[in-house]
Amino acid sequence: MATRTPPAPSSETKVPRTERGRQTLRKLLDAAAKEFGEKGFHEASISGITRRAGMALGSFYTYFDSKDEIFRALVKDMSGQVASHAGGAITPDLAPFEVERAALRAFLEFARDNKEVYRIVDEAEFVDPASFREHYETTARRILTRLKKGEAAGAFQPGMEEAHAWALMGMNVFLGLRYCVWDEDTDADRVADMANDLLRNGIGRD
Amino acid sequence: MATRTPPAPSSETKVPRTERGRQTLRKLLDAAAKEFGEKGFHEASISGITRRAGMALGSFYTYFDSKDEIFRALVKDMSGQVASHAGGAITPDLAPFEVERAALRAFLEFARDNKEVYRIVDEAEFVDPASFREHYETTARRILTRLKKGEAAGAFQPGMEEAHAWALMGMNVFLGLRYCVWDEDTDADRVADMANDLLRNGIGRD
Repeated sequence: MATRTPPAPSSETKVPRTERGRQTLRKLLDAAAKEFGEKGFHEASISGITRRAGMALGSFYTYFDSKDEIFRALVKDMSGQVASHAGGAITPDLAPFEVERAALRAFLEFARDNKEVYRIVDEAEFVDPASFREHYETTARRILTRLKKGEAAGAFQPGMEEAHAWALMGMNVFLGLRYCVWDEDTDADRVADMANDLLRNGIGRD
Repeated sequence: MATRTPPAPSSETKVPRTERGRQTLRKLLDAAAKEFGEKGFHEASISGITRRAGMALGSFYTYFDSKDEIFRALVKDMSGQVASHAGGAITPDLAPFEVERAALRAFLEFARDNKEVYRIVDEAEFVDPASFREHYETTARRILTRLKKGEAAGAFQPGMEEAHAWALMGMNVFLGLRYCVWDEDTDADRVADMANDLLRNGIGRD
């Protein structure tokens, strides 16, 4: 992944006070993404994480108390990374439909570069249901804010509500799974164009 | 659940030759849905399944060799039940958009009555990835067949393809999770109307 966002602060994570500490935490979270992504929560181990991070086992406990705690922090961190990638692709000059296309395009790119994000978020449904729910609720709220903004600007139909945000989120998540995680043969721009056209015009012929 | 579909035949399941055998298999699968849905794959046990089914432990082995095998059969069975519920709601008199509305409405009802379907299918991603993939690929193929039929009838835009089916499936799955599994306050008819309108007209204002 080209850009690295700072770790999302979590109430449980001991927030590092120095830049060096922040870098160490970032390394631990990246190593945890690989460890949990490859092995799944149950097979993953703290020693596997520190080994991947090239650190001594003891360093882990400066930041986290347990495997559960770093998993929880990782889901929050990945959720934040998804948000910041989408957010980073949205520039002030974009019209509301262009914003949705850019957000989906950025998400597809993120999913392609970080295939483990699906496995980790999906496993949270079993390992840490509150984090799973929080990820989707937060994402849906962010989408709804965009939809209401587009409605206010006169680009989207009146009456945008939560269900529209969930429909759009589901569409984006499944397109990412099919065309970025399972199979990369389809051009992401083509997928984003199709989805944006569906969102704009629907599939009705009239 | 009001109607019970016959168990989907699986290459591994010993297909019962008698009506009584088929009923016993149905009971085992229904008990397995409850056991896996409540406890998750790892905590679930064969004895828990037979206890819920009101059977002797030995009866299990007439049909399945292992917990893995009944889990695999259950995912296939639930996938078949989702399909037959949607299919059962589609009558020959319905126009293409009415077909999509009816299929979603039936799916939402199924999800509300069988909340464990999400947990079981989602856990298959970890326990039995091939079944997880097979469920979504099969569902997407079924949706694409409907979309192409609607296109041929002149109701849908030309060029319906697999990505449209995945977008529609994702929309439906996420609406079911939010409004039927997590929370039942929102009227399913209202959700189906919103989704159908999005599919027909998009959210563009022009």
